[in-house]
Amino acid sequence: MASRCMKFVQDELSSVVGSTVLVKLRDGTTIRGTLKNYDQHMNLLLDDTEEIIDPKTSIKRGMVVIRGDTVLFVSPITT
Amino acid sequence: MASRCMKFVQDELSSVVGSTVLVKLRDGTTIRGTLKNYDQHMNLLLDDTEEIIDPKTSIKRGMVVIRGDTVLFVSPITT
Amino acid sequence: MASRCMKFVQDELSSVVGSTVLVKLRDGTTIRGTLKNYDQHMNLLLDDTEEIIDPKTSIKRGMVVIRGDTVLFVSPITT
Amino acid sequence: MASRCMKFVQDELSSVVGSTVLVKLRDGTTIRGTLKNYDQHMNLLLDDTEEIIDPKTSIKRGMVVIRGDTVLFVSPITT
Amino acid sequence: MASRCMKFVQDELSSVVGSTVLVKLRDGTTIRGTLKNYDQHMNLLLDDTEEIIDPKTSIKRGMVVIRGDTVLFVSPITT
Amino acid sequence: MASRCMKFVQDELSSVVGSTVLVKLRDGTTIRGTLKNYDQHMNLLLDDTEEIIDPKTSIKRGMVVIRGDTVLFVSPITT
Amino acid sequence: MASRCMKFVQDELSSVVGSTVLVKLRDGTTIRGTLKNYDQHMNLLLDDTEEIIDPKTSIKRGMVVIRGDTVLFVSPITT
Repeated sequence: MASRCMKFVQDELSSVVGSTVLVKLRDGTTIRGTLKNYDQHMNLLLDDTEEIIDPKTSIKRGMVVIRGDTVLFVSPITT
Repeated sequence: MASRCMKFVQDELSSVVGSTVLVKLRDGTTIRGTLKNYDQHMNLLLDDTEEIIDPKTSIKRGMVVIRGDTVLFVSPITT
Repeated sequence: MASRCMKFVQDELSSVVGSTVLVKLRDGTTIRGTLKNYDQHMNLLLDDTEEIIDPKTSIKRGMVVIRGDTVLFVSPITT
Repeated sequence: MASRCMKFVQDELSSVVGSTVLVKLRDGTTIRGTLKNYDQHMNLLLDDTEEIIDPKTSIKRGMVVIRGDTVLFVSPITT
Repeated sequence: MASRCMKFVQDELSSVVGSTVLVKLRDGTTIRGTLKNYDQHMNLLLDDTEEIIDPKTSIKRGMVVIRGDTVLFVSPITT
Repeated sequence: MASRCMKFVQDELSSVVGSTVLVKLRDGTTIRGTLKNYDQHMNLLLDDTEEIIDPKTSIKRGMVVIRGDTVLFVSPITT
Repeated sequence: MASRCMKFVQDELSSVVGSTVLVKLRDGTTIRGTLKNYDQHMNLLLDDTEEIIDPKTSIKRGMVVIRGDTVLFVSPITT
């Protein structure tokens, strides 16, 4: 996936750096945390994360580097 | 998947920007929302989304950036 | 998958535009509808679709853009 | 997978055009039918097919275009 | 996977042409048969095969063309 | 995934060499150990590892070379 | 995955040729044996192998050629 092609994706991610996002991965893993960085492959750096096991259970993970090609979607959490 | 090859896909997506679409992902995740943007990899930006868990249950997700290579299909919802 | 290599696939798809086809996707999703368009990646545009859940249950989907690399097979339905 | 590299595969497929083959796909789908055409990606055109659900159950499918990168194996059926 | 890089794999496969091998595929399918041919993608041609369902059950398959990118491992059977 | 594109990922991994990290893989395998080395594909070398089966069970693995394209995420463990 | 990029992986594998390693594959298959050879794609040649079914059950496999892109991790077994 060439970098030049993901312009709008990068614009969206850029606009939510510093905010809380929810990321769902291909195997169903769901992680919530503060987006600190990203690149054109959708590799993501999140901090203060928790892996959400079910609506009532989560595991604190701290800093997490997520591999972009495992991402299903990224969703900013507005409060 | 070279960008020049997905002409009809882009035409279809272009014609439904601003409308409600249903997107099904490789892991079975189903998201309904307003299509705001897309690119030639089928990366999608949806707003006012809900993740549909089953016919009676959904989770509000707001803005969602969906990675194109996880998409099974996109279907405009006509009402 | 280079476009020049799928000559017979495109010929087959070309010959059934306007007809009803059944498409099975990698996750088991099965969709039946009228083939409206296709490209060399087997991206498909179907209309008047229904997603077949089991022999007795289906969900009306209308227009559907299917991502080619999720397709297992395409089968014209002759009646 | 470059076309020049699959010489023996193409020779084998070439020798069974017109014969009955059994094709198993990545998701476990098994299809039996007459091989009508193929290309260097192992895209296959089968006719008079049936999808084999279990040893006692099958579904008539007629013509089927199978995407090569979903194929596990192709086996000619000798009778 | 460039052909020049799989030198030792090809040497190993070359040394067992004509012998019985066991091949395990990504979906768990296990096939035992005589290795007749191979190429640099690990595409395999086996003859006199049986698909092993469980230690007590197998299905005769005859000739089988296996797509290399679905192979987990190939193991010569020494007797 | 071209090497030049994963700058921030490499910076993050570089900053935690010698520290304990938790790595989750695509099939759900979870490994905790000391990060000894990495490359631009997220291939990882961990030492003093344990594979975490569940919160109460783990298997000592010692040195482990992890293939980058199977990584979901890498998370430094701060204590 | 270009060969020049996996320098440390090759160094690690090089240092354990002749030793016993445990290899876990994408589908959960676990194989223990003596590493005889490898290449830059992590294709592996193991001898005197056993496929580990569960802590108490294993199947003797002898020589095994493992396709690199199915490898999750390789772990030398120190005794």
